[in-house]
Amino acid sequence: MSPTTNQPINRQFRLAERPQGVPTAGVWDYVEEPARSPDEGEMLVKVEYISLDPAMRGWMNARKSYIEPVGIGEVMRAGAVGEVLDSKADGFAPGDKVYGVLGVQTHATVPARGIHKIDATLAPIQRYLGALGMPGMTAYFGLLDIGRPEPGQTVVVSGAAGAVGSLVGQIAKIKGCRAIGIAGGPDKCRWVVEQLGFDGCIDYKSEDVYQSLKQHCPDGVDVYFDNVGGDILDAVLRLLAMRARIVICGAISQYNNLDQVRGPANYMSLLVYRARMEGFVVLDYAQQYSRGVAEIAKWIGEGKLIVKEDIRDNFERFPEIFGMLFKGDNLGKLIMKP
Amino acid sequence: MSPTTNQPINRQFRLAERPQGVPTAGVWDYVEEPARSPDEGEMLVKVEYISLDPAMRGWMNARKSYIEPVGIGEVMRAGAVGEVLDSKADGFAPGDKVYGVLGVQTHATVPARGIHKIDATLAPIQRYLGALGMPGMTAYFGLLDIGRPEPGQTVVVSGAAGAVGSLVGQIAKIKGCRAIGIAGGPDKCRWVVEQLGFDGCIDYKSEDVYQSLKQHCPDGVDVYFDNVGGDILDAVLRLLAMRARIVICGAISQYNNLDQVRGPANYMSLLVYRARMEGFVVLDYAQQYSRGVAEIAKWIGEGKLIVKEDIRDNFERFPEIFGMLFKGDNLGKLIMKP
Repeated sequence: MSPTTNQPINRQFRLAERPQGVPTAGVWDYVEEPARSPDEGEMLVKVEYISLDPAMRGWMNARKSYIEPVGIGEVMRAGAVGEVLDSKADGFAPGDKVYGVLGVQTHATVPARGIHKIDATLAPIQRYLGALGMPGMTAYFGLLDIGRPEPGQTVVVSGAAGAVGSLVGQIAKIKGCRAIGIAGGPDKCRWVVEQLGFDGCIDYKSEDVYQSLKQHCPDGVDVYFDNVGGDILDAVLRLLAMRARIVICGAISQYNNLDQVRGPANYMSLLVYRARMEGFVVLDYAQQYSRGVAEIAKWIGEGKLIVKEDIRDNFERFPEIFGMLFKGDNLGKLIMKP
Repeated sequence: MSPTTNQPINRQFRLAERPQGVPTAGVWDYVEEPARSPDEGEMLVKVEYISLDPAMRGWMNARKSYIEPVGIGEVMRAGAVGEVLDSKADGFAPGDKVYGVLGVQTHATVPARGIHKIDATLAPIQRYLGALGMPGMTAYFGLLDIGRPEPGQTVVVSGAAGAVGSLVGQIAKIKGCRAIGIAGGPDKCRWVVEQLGFDGCIDYKSEDVYQSLKQHCPDGVDVYFDNVGGDILDAVLRLLAMRARIVICGAISQYNNLDQVRGPANYMSLLVYRARMEGFVVLDYAQQYSRGVAEIAKWIGEGKLIVKEDIRDNFERFPEIFGMLFKGDNLGKLIMKP
């Protein structure tokens, strides 16, 4: 492809303003413009699947978190996979399938740094956004390295029907633990128990989480993998087993909080139960991803681990599809196909 | 002494009702009655020094914490040291100096279980209520085993002029760390820096804790030993160093909270800084106390560790003296001498 002729149109969502609460469509500008040809060391990638993750909400705030915020006017940040169309970067050639932070756009012109080739023969490439990507690595290293479950122990995970939570519970089962999920709605709960093999799942929309947890976890909660924060974290804190570990992975209930975040009122349970609450960021495990990918791929191949991808194909409706994450409308890993 | 003649009068404070907020004098009944003679396996102890600790407030609530609550009508629970007057317990004889949970009373008739002989030649016996007792063990094991400070790291401790905090900062210094205290009032802060050798001390009553901490800890806080909870915990959470450890030892700011305890709103900093918040109960280290006592006694003997005991001798004024803990009126270990 010549850099000056037939350049594809890049459709993109740029951050226009910082959201208050749940982002509305107006916080992004939809823009169409010709894709930029790659400079030396860059490549042009046709984006095939875009990952939609709760963490993206945090990147939209002005305050620096574990990474810099998305700047106003910049393409909305997102992990994605796609195919190289044109390359001036060593080691990358047209036709290569790659993963990188390509953004919410149909064509990304990006430097080679941070772009990784993926093996399209091992799995469908969108799997590198889910079980073989960040959510998979988050579940794997968060549960095993921070949560450190032992066989026979009880592992509870919130967001159990989501990209990370659905894997956490299944990995807990593979490791010989009891797995109890917390999810929103009877359909999700049924799926978590019947399809994924959790020992139980609590519907936080219709059940008293504390009372149900008490029934499901008569010996207390040894590991809690927290994706949501808020009331559910507080309920679990009251039901810890001695020397329990709480893995702080996210706090989706608080991401859109307009007032100050509400802290866990029952945190003194950490003292009563000699328990630990620890945060982690999956990026710290980058050097070990290959181990996690290999083991998860093996479990998928053996039929021990089921993956669910919820693929939506209406690029223009990105704001609405992204909002599903906070309404709890998705099952498994939410992915957008341009 | 005959069990029926000349039995001493036991003056005591019994819990009359569960307090709301800061306990008023009316929540205890003051009672005088003859001390009970020991039965088989028991001893009668003349109480010489009574330990007043923030944790006692928690024992007054109806809800079980890490130990059972004090029952209505029971003598108020407290650690104490004294001298055996009469014994029907193997291994204890009149004249022995002992430590145990003897209660807020002048004479305790108690079973031998839980009573320990102390060496009055090694240190004044009230020291077994402070640096060589629970507060000392709390500082020692909480800081070293849970906080795990490394030389050159910054250790922050709240309640820095109190029984535990004053030791935490000094042990941190002995271990080659920078020690920053947080205490209430200029006198306490001056004492902490000039007498105890902390590198700095923030007066939370007159300073903006967050801003002052930022100045004192330019590289962030590696270990925070938390005795107070509340706003100070939230301020520290914003200033953690990577992989920081927060030792949850107490939450004195919340013990008298009439509404629900306020949780740390900034707990998601645990994720940003890959940090850990962990509770502990010193009783779990009972098997290792002898090691802690020996090392602290050595440091005191070498002049590396200064202990301060605040001894009050008006038994009838127990409710008022106990209240000093929550007004921040004591310096060092608060002790009552009947």
